[in-house]
Amino acid sequence: MSQDRVIIFDTTLRDGEQSPGASMTKEEKLRIAKALEKLKVDVIEAGFAIASPGDFAAVKLIANTIQDSTICSLSRAMDADIDRAAEALAGANHGRIHTFIATSPIHMQHKLRLQPDQVVEQAVRAVTRARNLCPDVEFSCEDAGRSEIDFLCRIIEAAIDAGARTINIPDTVGYAIPHQFGEMIRQIIQRVPNADKAVFSVHCHNDLGLAVANSLAAVTAGARQVECTINGLGERAGNAALEEIVMAIRTREDVLGVQTGIVTENILAASRLVSGITGFVVQPNKAIVGANAFAHESGIHQDGVLKHRETYEIMSAQSVGWHTNKLSLGKLSGRNAFRSRLAELGIELQSEADMNLAFARFKELADKKHEIFDEDLQALVSDTLTEVVEHVKLVYLDVASRMGETPQARVVLNVDGLEREASAPGSGPVDATFKAIEQIICSDSILQLYSVNAITQGTDSQGEVTVRLEKAGRIVNGNGADTDIVVASAKAYINALNLMREGAYRAHPQAAAV
Amino acid sequence: MSQDRVIIFDTTLRDGEQSPGASMTKEEKLRIAKALEKLKVDVIEAGFAIASPGDFAAVKLIANTIQDSTICSLSRAMDADIDRAAEALAGANHGRIHTFIATSPIHMQHKLRLQPDQVVEQAVRAVTRARNLCPDVEFSCEDAGRSEIDFLCRIIEAAIDAGARTINIPDTVGYAIPHQFGEMIRQIIQRVPNADKAVFSVHCHNDLGLAVANSLAAVTAGARQVECTINGLGERAGNAALEEIVMAIRTREDVLGVQTGIVTENILAASRLVSGITGFVVQPNKAIVGANAFAHESGIHQDGVLKHRETYEIMSAQSVGWHTNKLSLGKLSGRNAFRSRLAELGIELQSEADMNLAFARFKELADKKHEIFDEDLQALVSDTLTEVVEHVKLVYLDVASRMGETPQARVVLNVDGLEREASAPGSGPVDATFKAIEQIICSDSILQLYSVNAITQGTDSQGEVTVRLEKAGRIVNGNGADTDIVVASAKAYINALNLMREGAYRAHPQAAAV
Repeated sequence: MSQDRVIIFDTTLRDGEQSPGASMTKEEKLRIAKALEKLKVDVIEAGFAIASPGDFAAVKLIANTIQDSTICSLSRAMDADIDRAAEALAGANHGRIHTFIATSPIHMQHKLRLQPDQVVEQAVRAVTRARNLCPDVEFSCEDAGRSEIDFLCRIIEAAIDAGARTINIPDTVGYAIPHQFGEMIRQIIQRVPNADKAVFSVHCHNDLGLAVANSLAAVTAGARQVECTINGLGERAGNAALEEIVMAIRTREDVLGVQTGIVTENILAASRLVSGITGFVVQPNKAIVGANAFAHESGIHQDGVLKHRETYEIMSAQSVGWHTNKLSLGKLSGRNAFRSRLAELGIELQSEADMNLAFARFKELADKKHEIFDEDLQALVSDTLTEVVEHVKLVYLDVASRMGETPQARVVLNVDGLEREASAPGSGPVDATFKAIEQIICSDSILQLYSVNAITQGTDSQGEVTVRLEKAGRIVNGNGADTDIVVASAKAYINALNLMREGAYRAHPQAAAV
Repeated sequence: MSQDRVIIFDTTLRDGEQSPGASMTKEEKLRIAKALEKLKVDVIEAGFAIASPGDFAAVKLIANTIQDSTICSLSRAMDADIDRAAEALAGANHGRIHTFIATSPIHMQHKLRLQPDQVVEQAVRAVTRARNLCPDVEFSCEDAGRSEIDFLCRIIEAAIDAGARTINIPDTVGYAIPHQFGEMIRQIIQRVPNADKAVFSVHCHNDLGLAVANSLAAVTAGARQVECTINGLGERAGNAALEEIVMAIRTREDVLGVQTGIVTENILAASRLVSGITGFVVQPNKAIVGANAFAHESGIHQDGVLKHRETYEIMSAQSVGWHTNKLSLGKLSGRNAFRSRLAELGIELQSEADMNLAFARFKELADKKHEIFDEDLQALVSDTLTEVVEHVKLVYLDVASRMGETPQARVVLNVDGLEREASAPGSGPVDATFKAIEQIICSDSILQLYSVNAITQGTDSQGEVTVRLEKAGRIVNGNGADTDIVVASAKAYINALNLMREGAYRAHPQAAAV
């Protein structure tokens, strides 16, 4: 690979999934992995294989499916972790084991309770074992930002000697400041004698709003891999946002002097997919993918844009996948128009049966809604694609909002083939509906999040509801879309219950702190 | 002021309000200004006085009310602009006129259609006029990031000679990269002979996700004022986020060597206020003020946090206003408990009548909802405080969601004292409700945004709905909260209609590009 090429390592499925509430099923992870492959992400960190059977299954499924991107599994510097990662990656075209250990005095003393010599020894043992199982090994120094540079240079040299091809320097707690972080990377690359035998990588957290800047400072200092996530998802304030890293590198090649291999036109679709699956909204003023990112309100600006396009635009909305004409299909659109529009949107349905189901839902929606936009199609197909076994199905719902009266919901569900009915009062129609469903199911779960997005503009817009349920530490996100917000809410709640039944959750994740 | 003190200049009310859809009434602006004063923001840019009568009235109201912070109005480098700014600021304890002109070749040629000499001349004339009206004058070079440094030094020297106390270098299009932007600021300060007579300021946009980093690079290079907004609101991808700038400076004083005067414990309240008024959500993974910013999910992290607090925390959640115990009041809480909880939350009601109204609403809510959280109180009081004349009031609403039937809404409104009724079908209960309201009012406006936030957790949570209406270029945001999401939607729609009637909007804003 050329010296000027920056490797984009996406960790949406690992660090991103560690965000409280962002857990995903393995089918959802696969859909995101496919979107990342379409972006031509170089490396996809698919999970932390030893963390849970669900994580293992997801890494394995993605490793067996994705063709082009390298698939990576995280592992602590422990034999069992590394073996499990290798097992999950066995079917990958290109696999990578990513092993890590903490190197800061505070972590070595309080978390690992090991002496520095012991930490180096454990790192070397881990890298060696990984190299025997997989030619592509990455080693990370956890909490490098607060580590002593002499010690970092020592453990990195040892890890490269043991066969690590990529050395990752994370700013685990999001504490770094760009000029100082860049200087640290520069010094490490200069001082490690065998630095030329590895690619240096950074993984920055955004606690102070500096993850992207710290990553770019590291690139300027010689790093050639950046770890990042779609929408900047990740623990706490998240990771460096892939879309910002990629577009800064592309827009400012004159200053940064490097390139990535990302197909930027697919950025917006990936952003929407991740937001839809996790229920994590993208704020309107988010760079690149926020609804306002390319909107020019002010009179002076509009005037400027009209007079000369470059006056206010440093990159085009089209270059990251925004289309001006979003109107898509209407009531009279036929099967072929539907099929070809889906293809244009990059949506592949697995079988003719899926296509039939999706087309039937499209016709149903077109009956209720005048104009069908791309976003409507994405939501509709997203519903169709979710391969959860429907233990519980919504048969009928009847609830009224009458001012001065307590709302009362009547719900009929089909539970494993049997129809069951319940009524309940509530503080609003959604509350009453959820209570009636709970009377039948008795899931005993706690509603952690209820969020509504209008998918498109206009009063007949579909509402897309996300319901996050928690039960004994397990968290699931259910989604439902309908032009009726109460029906969408019921669908989302039932989807969450079905996910809970499927075991599509993470319990007490043994997640990582890289 | 000490050499190590960075002046925090907040432009939420000016650049923030320029975001498409973020327009505010003057009462809303005043509430935000009061929150900024509590934060001890040094300078509040309250608006662009000449842009519209509404902007003028808002600047004037804020200038006449706020005691401690300096109040600033923007103005182009034109006589009429400057005179209007001075007029609006006449009642301020500390007023500032902020005048700007474009200095980049692309802007001078295509937008201003002026020669560089003419631009310098116009800048000097503007600063001189402003200084004759107000001792505190700021001068900005619009699109400085793409201007020639020789020309920048020339115009800045002239502006300081003419009496500008603050020189602002904006990165108008969000194009800068930190090390290069810092270097530019350093060079300008070195090369401008009278640089010691002014404070240098920066104003960065976040198109590439680098606004905060660029601002901090400028501070390291000698800038001593940062222009920023709450939640990073602002045109396109927004401005540098105040909360990130302030917390980076506070957390990394060891590297940056400067301080601000901000009372950081009031950050979260200000963030919520701005988000509530504009309807712009804050994403969960937003630094400092996002719901997950201080949440630690992963097993390893939790373990680390338990073993040693500092292992993963670089700043405390409390230091920016997060409280662990959010449970506030219940059904049995009395008037005194209510009053003192409001005081703790920093909410001041203007009169005893407002207190009575707020308490009555609290009791009504407590009847429907088991636990009342701080967020519920904030929403409730926010409803109470909105001083819009209620031309249109919701009297009665009846709408049902019945699967298989088209929802039909019956609405009774009180319009200027007369009761009127209408029924309408819709694609959902909210759509039917809005259509029934429109049958009565015939506002002919377009629904631009419909968004729902669950204010608190739990199924009996209140929904807070924002409805953004547009009519002939005017935009208003209406808000409504209720445990019934359909009723909340009706309230928000009616609130928007009342705002539209009040003229609380901006038509074709003559906004600025700094």
